[in-house]
Amino acid sequence: MDLALKLETTSTVPFHRQLYDELRRAILSGRLESGQRMPSSRALAKALGISRATVLFSYDQLLSEGYLKTVPASGTFVACQLPDELLQATSPLISPTSPSRLELSTYGETLATVNLQPPPGQKPLINFSCYGRPAFDEFPIQLWRRLLSRACCFNTTILDYPADPLGYKPLREAVTRYLTQSRAVRCEPDQVVIVNGSQQALDLIARLFLNWGDRVAMEDPGYFEARCIFQVQGAEVLPIPVDHSGLVMKYLSTLTTPIKLVYVTPSHQFPTGAVLSLPRRLALLAWAQQTGAIILEDDYDSEFRYDERPIPALQGLASSDSVIYIGTFSKVLFPSLRMGYLVVPQQLVPVVTRAKWLIDRQSPLLEQHVLTDFINEGHLERHIRRMRMLYAQRRETLVQALTQGLENQVTIMGENAGMSVMVQFHTHWKDEEIVDRAEQRGVELISARSCYMKAENSNGKFLLGYADLNSETIAEGVWRLAQILKA
Amino acid sequence: MDLALKLETTSTVPFHRQLYDELRRAILSGRLESGQRMPSSRALAKALGISRATVLFSYDQLLSEGYLKTVPASGTFVACQLPDELLQATSPLISPTSPSRLELSTYGETLATVNLQPPPGQKPLINFSCYGRPAFDEFPIQLWRRLLSRACCFNTTILDYPADPLGYKPLREAVTRYLTQSRAVRCEPDQVVIVNGSQQALDLIARLFLNWGDRVAMEDPGYFEARCIFQVQGAEVLPIPVDHSGLVMKYLSTLTTPIKLVYVTPSHQFPTGAVLSLPRRLALLAWAQQTGAIILEDDYDSEFRYDERPIPALQGLASSDSVIYIGTFSKVLFPSLRMGYLVVPQQLVPVVTRAKWLIDRQSPLLEQHVLTDFINEGHLERHIRRMRMLYAQRRETLVQALTQGLENQVTIMGENAGMSVMVQFHTHWKDEEIVDRAEQRGVELISARSCYMKAENSNGKFLLGYADLNSETIAEGVWRLAQILKA
Repeated sequence: MDLALKLETTSTVPFHRQLYDELRRAILSGRLESGQRMPSSRALAKALGISRATVLFSYDQLLSEGYLKTVPASGTFVACQLPDELLQATSPLISPTSPSRLELSTYGETLATVNLQPPPGQKPLINFSCYGRPAFDEFPIQLWRRLLSRACCFNTTILDYPADPLGYKPLREAVTRYLTQSRAVRCEPDQVVIVNGSQQALDLIARLFLNWGDRVAMEDPGYFEARCIFQVQGAEVLPIPVDHSGLVMKYLSTLTTPIKLVYVTPSHQFPTGAVLSLPRRLALLAWAQQTGAIILEDDYDSEFRYDERPIPALQGLASSDSVIYIGTFSKVLFPSLRMGYLVVPQQLVPVVTRAKWLIDRQSPLLEQHVLTDFINEGHLERHIRRMRMLYAQRRETLVQALTQGLENQVTIMGENAGMSVMVQFHTHWKDEEIVDRAEQRGVELISARSCYMKAENSNGKFLLGYADLNSETIAEGVWRLAQILKA
Repeated sequence: MDLALKLETTSTVPFHRQLYDELRRAILSGRLESGQRMPSSRALAKALGISRATVLFSYDQLLSEGYLKTVPASGTFVACQLPDELLQATSPLISPTSPSRLELSTYGETLATVNLQPPPGQKPLINFSCYGRPAFDEFPIQLWRRLLSRACCFNTTILDYPADPLGYKPLREAVTRYLTQSRAVRCEPDQVVIVNGSQQALDLIARLFLNWGDRVAMEDPGYFEARCIFQVQGAEVLPIPVDHSGLVMKYLSTLTTPIKLVYVTPSHQFPTGAVLSLPRRLALLAWAQQTGAIILEDDYDSEFRYDERPIPALQGLASSDSVIYIGTFSKVLFPSLRMGYLVVPQQLVPVVTRAKWLIDRQSPLLEQHVLTDFINEGHLERHIRRMRMLYAQRRETLVQALTQGLENQVTIMGENAGMSVMVQFHTHWKDEEIVDRAEQRGVELISARSCYMKAENSNGKFLLGYADLNSETIAEGVWRLAQILKA
């Protein structure tokens, strides 16, 4: 066989790899025909002036991938059916498309038309609009990479279908310890469910509990994404006003229609930043106990309080199984991790296990291993401590800049906590005008409008995210805002 | 200040870390009191016989975490409010739990009672029951780790909320190229949606299209998890018989009630292994075109055909928008990755985007980057080629062992493809007895019963997974089975 093969002696690609590539190319192009006998490894090695081991290595690779086949006591041959042909399909029939009937379900129709916040887009220079974005440049990414690398090893259990839809057990144990200590949540690891962020937790609970037409009470203003989920599930959402002590209980307790579920953010009300007072917490729990309503507690950024001890979770105060608790790692770590957790009453564990298994089996496993190590080796607590210091400084910078730059043109709401602050601007400008004029000056602002059931209640109110902005950026941004509002 | 701090000169822990730990412990235990002035870095360095830089490093860490505070022109002091207190909540009120009313929705009730396959449990010695488990020990885990390590770097876009709920765009482009070439699917990248495995794809489509009481036709026997999803969504599932050429069209076309959706596995019918013939494909497409029904094509393991070119996907044959296509990386890579894809008609892109965003935002991003590189650098194609060779050998071993060991006591079904084979044992033993006796001999078997709408049709039928079993294990397992069946 006269086979011209080109091996580059100056290349960084090893000979066995070059030989594999050349032979594969020759087979695919038909220079080496199917069924043709290959030269012996010894002969080819001699012809090319390379070692026989190198040739054998290339041959083995081609054999294992199906380009060559061995016939015992006869030799090595080019395969008759090439693996690449097995990979490529050709369609025997293609005709032009015509429209078909793809009628959506009621869920689908509702989803298609509900008013939804678009996903975040490009970022301008100074962006106050990301009210839940952590300071990415402070995340210990090298450490995370090291833990990833350590966890990613050959280990059947890390690649296989999950043994437990609720999540990796050591992670649920670590989360239990964290919640018990830091949030005064009362739970056992088997009540903790690892989900793809708090979004999936909200959706799963809405689906498990809400029938079409059921009533859901939630804070107004409140978290619009939760409202969307309830609405798309067919629930009627009843707005309950919020003041400086959180959800105003008297509005809830005077409702005459039965409420299936009440959604609250008691540790740090979204978006006002109010903390639900202890008397109201007790009243809410008593009301739920009395009416049989479910309390859905979303504890999205309670880790960040800057001058006081954290408020214990509502869940830990409850004397009955009326509270379902939701937490997330999107704020304390990073959102693209898609990791959060649900704490459910013991009696719900079987149905939630089934739900997670049927919906998407389990959350990806490798990240769960890494997160377990991150928590158990103390990195989570350390990172939260660092971020609490940093965000406290940034909040302080923002509040000072607003107070000095805008004086009586601004009211700052909420407690000294969180990753964003709600403000009310006192100005003759309309909200849209403020957003437009800020954008022209390279500042992105987001109105609090979507948080309100009635748009007119949101006039002049904006949500300023500061966690991912450094002090200079914050000061510069507020200075530009002041120029606009004073004009 | 007389501060006894113990630094171990023989320890592998660096001094600055030891000093940090000692000081933190002293602060937390109260040996260093809140508000107390710290020694100057120079004095402490001298007292401990270490460099001042080391002391400054430890001080900085404690400052950044909030244990110490600096008062300008005065010095460094122990913080008044310790960060650990800010992390720990104590509950002011804990009382015993009493039951509450947690009434499930219709979805929740149905889910709680539907007959569901349990998640996989412990593995015995020879396990034929994992009909979809790849050969994990052949997965290039070191390469995957290298790609993970490369992708995991500081980069805002890899940590942030996703820009696109449909998935990482380069991954959708890579999947499009792969599907166009290997599966003859016709699509643009914006029709591809990255989801958490085919399970989430099934659930999402069921939710978007099925109202309570809608009718779904599916193969019988068929994929029971799909049936569960449709049933829990409230659909009436109509079984359509399957023969050696797949779904028998005459049963489908004579149905008089309107069918909303038909679920099929045309490339490799689950569990029988039949391939839907071209005439039936065309008949199915024509029927869907005529009735307006949606075809849901689940192409779960079509990569593995051992003696012929792959069958082009039904989606690519369709002249209208009637086919929704589902694929998964669970079989060709590994299941704990939780990554699959949907290909939807253009007109559905907006509502599917909304659905994925509302349900769980997006699939985790880091894995999407790694998978993109894995595909674009040719590793996916190479890995599939290798696995195709390996699984073909394993299938051959299984078929030979069954034929020789059981002779006329077994019928082997399906084509030369896939990761499992359905067999029918001809024996006086009942299925449960076979399973029990096999277990006693260390062999796990799974009956095909759950795939059948009527249990009696499944008598003697078993599903044998072979992809993750080596030749010796397969031969030994079949030998043990033969002993049982011949007894």
